[in-house]
Amino acid sequence: MKYKKIPGGICAAEGFMASGAHCGIRNNTSKPDIALIVSSVACHAAAVYTQNKVKGAPIHLTQKHLADGKAKAILCNSGNANTCNPDGPAIAQTCCNLAAEATGLRPEDFIIASTGVIGQPLSTAPFEKGLPKLAAALRREGSTDAADAILTTDTKHKEFAYEFSLGGKTCHIGAIGKGSGMINPNMATMLVFLTTDVAIGSDLLEQALQAEILHSFNQLYIDGDTSTNDMVSILASGLAGNQPIEETSGEYQTFREVLHTICVKMCRALAADGEGATKLLECHVNGAPSGEIARRVAKTVVSSDLCKTAMFGEDANWGRVLCAIGYTEGDFPVDKVSLILKSSAGEVLVCENATHRPFSEEEASRILAEDELQLLIDLQSGTESGTAWGCDLTYDYVKINGDYRT
Amino acid sequence: MKYKKIPGGICAAEGFMASGAHCGIRNNTSKPDIALIVSSVACHAAAVYTQNKVKGAPIHLTQKHLADGKAKAILCNSGNANTCNPDGPAIAQTCCNLAAEATGLRPEDFIIASTGVIGQPLSTAPFEKGLPKLAAALRREGSTDAADAILTTDTKHKEFAYEFSLGGKTCHIGAIGKGSGMINPNMATMLVFLTTDVAIGSDLLEQALQAEILHSFNQLYIDGDTSTNDMVSILASGLAGNQPIEETSGEYQTFREVLHTICVKMCRALAADGEGATKLLECHVNGAPSGEIARRVAKTVVSSDLCKTAMFGEDANWGRVLCAIGYTEGDFPVDKVSLILKSSAGEVLVCENATHRPFSEEEASRILAEDELQLLIDLQSGTESGTAWGCDLTYDYVKINGDYRT
Repeated sequence: MKYKKIPGGICAAEGFMASGAHCGIRNNTSKPDIALIVSSVACHAAAVYTQNKVKGAPIHLTQKHLADGKAKAILCNSGNANTCNPDGPAIAQTCCNLAAEATGLRPEDFIIASTGVIGQPLSTAPFEKGLPKLAAALRREGSTDAADAILTTDTKHKEFAYEFSLGGKTCHIGAIGKGSGMINPNMATMLVFLTTDVAIGSDLLEQALQAEILHSFNQLYIDGDTSTNDMVSILASGLAGNQPIEETSGEYQTFREVLHTICVKMCRALAADGEGATKLLECHVNGAPSGEIARRVAKTVVSSDLCKTAMFGEDANWGRVLCAIGYTEGDFPVDKVSLILKSSAGEVLVCENATHRPFSEEEASRILAEDELQLLIDLQSGTESGTAWGCDLTYDYVKINGDYRT
Repeated sequence: MKYKKIPGGICAAEGFMASGAHCGIRNNTSKPDIALIVSSVACHAAAVYTQNKVKGAPIHLTQKHLADGKAKAILCNSGNANTCNPDGPAIAQTCCNLAAEATGLRPEDFIIASTGVIGQPLSTAPFEKGLPKLAAALRREGSTDAADAILTTDTKHKEFAYEFSLGGKTCHIGAIGKGSGMINPNMATMLVFLTTDVAIGSDLLEQALQAEILHSFNQLYIDGDTSTNDMVSILASGLAGNQPIEETSGEYQTFREVLHTICVKMCRALAADGEGATKLLECHVNGAPSGEIARRVAKTVVSSDLCKTAMFGEDANWGRVLCAIGYTEGDFPVDKVSLILKSSAGEVLVCENATHRPFSEEEASRILAEDELQLLIDLQSGTESGTAWGCDLTYDYVKINGDYRT
């Protein structure tokens, strides 16, 4: 056992404190809307951002602040994306200034993020009023408060943490994240903040993050819309006291492994809590000619509206899965494809050599009645594999998005 | 007035007869399931096909039959796609043989198409029983019967025809088509059959069709799933008696123009009757640096689940449109984008220079309450334009597809 799951979320790593509260961005006073996360020491930092050409003002400011690979804190609000606002950049700067004043840090120490409606005026009054309160409330047990404050249409907060060992030193990595619509990450993702106490340089930290997201967050699909405000960031305090990680070391492999574990955990939680979702879909592709094709096929399947609605209907309509495999970009054979539908209730082979295989519809229905479904695809044309995560498409997705602003 | 809309659908052009009836592929005896369309003379023919790697058996057989650019008839069934069936190719061949026998034509004279559930066994008994009946029922007034027989989840049949003049000769072009889910054509489309009595060689006919679909059927989006059985075909009987059309002539331009008109008409009808749709969305993009970028932006907007649900909710959530423009593939500026929402109830400018512009929510709601909505985008970065068609995403889409097979 190289690592174990522990409580503490984004504060599990040494040096981090967090808080979150309702500060007045939202009308609903029971929904916290600003989160603050602060490290006791300077951190190496890295982030990946949305590839949307329309970017929220906070994205640009964060890119500027992380240019030197260092940061000490995170400021994130929900309820307003601060995107397509003519004075968005000035607002983001004011928010960092206010946060700096409240915490005794410098404005450029902050990663800043906003999530919510696009193109709505954002007042800085809630920040002015709220930040001193948030700074005073910072604590090691504050992860859940922060995780709650960054949510939009999510139904539950997402926080995870793992403990592992590097060179005899106990290390930690923690994360909070939010979904749950406008999610089809492209070289970046929704909002996920990671912290660790591992000692690692910012270049290697960025390399690890960039490599990781190809296998986790970029393989997550809820509704095909790539947000204007997506970001995954990681802060490394170095307080675990390990020898700084070298790229060629076994320690780097261990760190990558734990990073992957927590990111997959977060992907699964984000997918399961996708807007309106009743089921988590996990698609594994084996036997692919390349890892990229395996990942692409898996993501195409979990992205298909027709596969998503069939899973909602608990209907073993495997032809739709074959159809989605068939329109996946890339050159690979489809004539040997097999498909197994699997859940905690069992598994059933529904297609072999890309053709119908008799199966019990009753058994399939029992399997598909579960909350977590696995679609196991074997292309039988190679040795590579890949995974993607998504959710079913339901009446509630339409309901939530048919009138999001009111 | 270069052309006018006329009745007659796929039989409006000289030489064509059609029929359609329930033959037993479907259990529901009130839903016709096989259509037959026959020309009295040999036709030049062209078709474009789905780019899905998983292709229905009828697609392969039609490609073979059209290799010489000639055909005389169309056989199309609904209720079963004859796709992912181990004996699919043999079944498609048997169906052509039976149709040839019933009509006195040769099997290779047929364009054959199937649409419906993928991966279900298909019996040839309904063809054996039904084709003599269909052949006997062929008539000039048969377009609606055929148009009804090819439908799956469509709520209404689609047939259109236009009359125009070439070199003093009266010419016609007609079409029937079906949607209404699994529609995201890629260099091809759902099932649309076109007929004309124009004299035109098969190479030029194919060139005209290939060029046309870039601006019509490939710009249509219902749910992102590219079908395994998509096809658009055109038969030209030559019975109008015009001088065969040359590529460099004004007649070719006229033919292209009428072809475009009927294809756009069909796209609008297919989009308006998309699965579960309550509204037709038409997105026009102006001021683009290239036609391709204009078309791509328009299609991305009508493809966005969040734009589609907002239109269903009659919510002027323009930030979602900006978001979709922003993740459109390609390099173009987004900082000068403007957006007008328009319908028969009026129009409202909701965004200028990619930022919020105060508007009356009440007025916007009144505009969005209509059945046909236009999203007018100006990128203000060029002179090119493009259009795409789609529909809203509704509860009924989820309902229809949550349990399609039962």
